[in-house]
Parts: sequence; C-alpha cells; structure tokens
Amino acid sequence: MNGIGAHEVIIETPEHKQQMQDFQQEHLERVIYTYQFRSLDLKNDKRLKYNMIFKNYGKEAGASLYHSHTQLISTPVTPKRVKEELKGSQWYYDYKERCIFCDIIEDEISRGERVVAVNSDFIAIVPYASRFPFELWLLPLRHSPDFDSITDSERPNLAQLLGLVLKKLVNGLCNPSYNFIFHTAPNRFLHPGYWQTIDRDYHWHIEIMPRLTRPGGFEWGTGFYINPTPPEEAAQFLRELSIQ
Amino acid sequence: MNGIGAHEVIIETPEHKQQMQDFQQEHLERVIYTYQFRSLDLKNDKRLKYNMIFKNYGKEAGASLYHSHTQLISTPVTPKRVKEELKGSQWYYDYKERCIFCDIIEDEISRGERVVAVNSDFIAIVPYASRFPFELWLLPLRHSPDFDSITDSERPNLAQLLGLVLKKLVNGLCNPSYNFIFHTAPNRFLHPGYWQTIDRDYHWHIEIMPRLTRPGGFEWGTGFYINPTPPEEAAQFLRELSIQ
Repeated sequence: MNGIGAHEVIIETPEHKQQMQDFQQEHLERVIYTYQFRSLDLKNDKRLKYNMIFKNYGKEAGASLYHSHTQLISTPVTPKRVKEELKGSQWYYDYKERCIFCDIIEDEISRGERVVAVNSDFIAIVPYASRFPFELWLLPLRHSPDFDSITDSERPNLAQLLGLVLKKLVNGLCNPSYNFIFHTAPNRFLHPGYWQTIDRDYHWHIEIMPRLTRPGGFEWGTGFYINPTPPEEAAQFLRELSIQ
Repeated sequence: MNGIGAHEVIIETPEHKQQMQDFQQEHLERVIYTYQFRSLDLKNDKRLKYNMIFKNYGKEAGASLYHSHTQLISTPVTPKRVKEELKGSQWYYDYKERCIFCDIIEDEISRGERVVAVNSDFIAIVPYASRFPFELWLLPLRHSPDFDSITDSERPNLAQLLGLVLKKLVNGLCNPSYNFIFHTAPNRFLHPGYWQTIDRDYHWHIEIMPRLTRPGGFEWGTGFYINPTPPEEAAQFLRELSIQ
C-alpha cells in the first residue's frame, strides 16, 4: 500500500438552495450518471483499490457545506468496514451457495412489512434489525457486485426510487440530517483467494442513515446499536406517507 | 447466547449541577470504587460475558440526562469491537511475546511527545494515529487485563489522573461533549483457544473521545477516521495547560 488516493466533490446543482430531494428525476439521473462515470474513470488508476461514494446531508451528518454535493473518495486499500461486509457475504455464499442480498430481497418482497417502495429494477427496505431509526437500504433487483455496472435502463429507476425515499425522509421526518453510502465491490485487478466468488456473493446497494439519534459510548464501545424504532413500524410509516 | 443482560446507571453525585470534572479526588475515587464493586458483583452472574462501563457527557456524545452519571451495561456476548481489540492484542502477543499496551507505554514514555500526564500508577496519552482530535487514553502502568483488579493503592492515582485530564479537556476545549469507555477483558468462565493468553496479552485502559467533529459518511462507510489534529499537538496543548 502507498499513500495515494483521490477525493472528488460532485456538485449536483448550480442552485445553492436546491437539495437532492428537490431534483427532478432526470436531474437525479444525471447525478447518478456522474457517480458512475467518475467511478469508472478512477478504476483506470491501478493504485486505487476502492471507490467510496457518500453524501453527508446536514450538520448532524458531518456536512460542513450547505450546497448540495456528494463525495467520492478512492483509497489505496479496501476499507475495514467494506472488508467486514465482503467477508460476511462470502461466508454466507460458502454456506448456502446463494447471494445473501438476493435472499434478503426475496424474503422482504414475500413478507412485505419492511418494504418502503419498489419499481421494476430497485427495492427500498428498512432492513431487519436495522442499526438506526428509519435506516434505509436501496438494492438493485438484478444481482451485480458493482454499482458502476448500472445500465442505461436501470439508471432512471434508481433516480426514481432514491428521489422518492429522500422526499419521504425529508417530508416525513422534518428534514433530518442523513448520510448515504454506496456499498460496492472493490476494484479487482488481483484476485486473492477470498475474492474468487465476489462476482456471485456480493451485491451492491445504497445505505441511507438518517441521523435522528446520536451514537453514545455503548455503540462506540461495542459496535452494537440500540434502535428504539422497530424497522417494521418505520417501513409502514414511510410506505404510507404520500408525497405530492 | 440468550437475551439476558444488565443495565445499571451509576449516579455519581446528589448535586444536579456538579459534573465529574468538579469532583474532589476522594469523591472520584469512590465513584471508581463503585464501578469496580458493581463490575465484580455482576461477574457472579455466569450468564453475563462482558461488563462495559461508559459515560456519555453532553448532547453531542449521546447524553439524554444532564445529571452526572455513568452506565454499566452487561452483555451475554463479548461485543464485536471488544473482540477486534482482543484479537489485535493476541496477534501482537503471538508475534512479539509481549503485551502491545506495555510496549506502547514504554515507547510513549521514552518519546514523551504524546504524553499528557503521568503519576506513579497511570499514564494519560494522546494515542499515535488517534481517530479523533484530542482523543485520550489512560493506561495503568501495571500490566493487568481487568479493570476490576485495580488495587486500593492504585484507585487514588486513577482518580487523580482522570480528574486532571477531564479538567484539562473541559477548561481547554470549552466544555466539549465526550464519551469515555473502559476497555477491559471479558468475563472468563470458559477458555476458548484464542483467550488462553489473555492474561498476558490484554491490558485494560480507558479511552476518552471528545466529540469535537462529527463522523460523516466516510467514517461510517470505511471504519477509517479523518483527524485534522495531530496527536502530538493535542498532547502538547493539554500537557502545557495549567489547571488551578
């Protein structure tokens, strides 16, 4: 590993007061295209192992600038938490020979109680045993480890669903601060043993974490999270909330 | 594992407005004795695997009550983050046949630049590559895995050093919110293979994390921390700060 990296700020709009939840679907689609374009371009630099796309919205979420923006940080190493998720996915695949995220999607669709919205390419759920109140995951229905493999026909559907859930969060929960993070596979130039099944075992997705509670000493010390809101109730509230 | 646990709130003073940094040394000594006493008592319940002592001070640190208090949560499982630290210590011991924390103490004393204060039983340092600005660790000079093995003669010295660094934090940094967490070994009723060296490889300590910056999407997504304040500068500032 060396000390190289990249940090890009994607400015989503020229309008200072417009926020992501205010964007028209076509606008949000172009923002997502920019994420994809920059991610693919950074993969040309073989020194970079991981592209992390994330957004800090609001002071509580660590935002220092108001103007609507997303960040892309490329690291020369696969980050610790990413590795943990990859290892968990690999462990499940070794055991079941199925992608854990594909199984989650199938299970959530059949139960319905934690589904917030779905379209022909993506699903938004409040995950089982979620760490934070109103935590949301957006997953592609098509199995793929890499966000930047998103197709021309999938992009509008991601924009539709992301725009919808952000509007629901902002309208339903009084404009909370939130982070979102794209969880995607690392850049694969070399194939260490434990990544040989990554194309089958890992499934990219977006995690949205509204900052409604502040993690305290217990969360920091344990890595366990106390969530006072059952995900089923959060999902029902967001599902039934109508957006004009 | 079963769903059993314990949650105790240690109310440190009858005075609503008095905070830990205001306590006389003898008072803080009795608070520490209470931590020890409750921890030892909870170890009689063989269903409990880990006693976590922590404090949330101020809104930013997740405190919901103003009145000065500490929490003790016992879990029926060793928490994820505790396991990570234990495994790291074990890995170092396997490699070097020495306790990593004893090595850190020796190194920090000889360098001096990250030491905030020291007395005959404890040392306070801003750790190398600390995650947060002004993060502080308090370590006993005597090697021991268990906080609750603290002796009658060590307790006053822990009270002296903890009181001193809290006064320095509160006076020097305009009363910031902070968390502190006691890092101690799990309750050892059974001995799985990887804990056979725990008495030699693990060293209890206290980690204090002032909440001066808010973790954003990068920190949540990676488990890596961006710290704008070099620990050597933070240590010098706190070391040189005089407290009346």
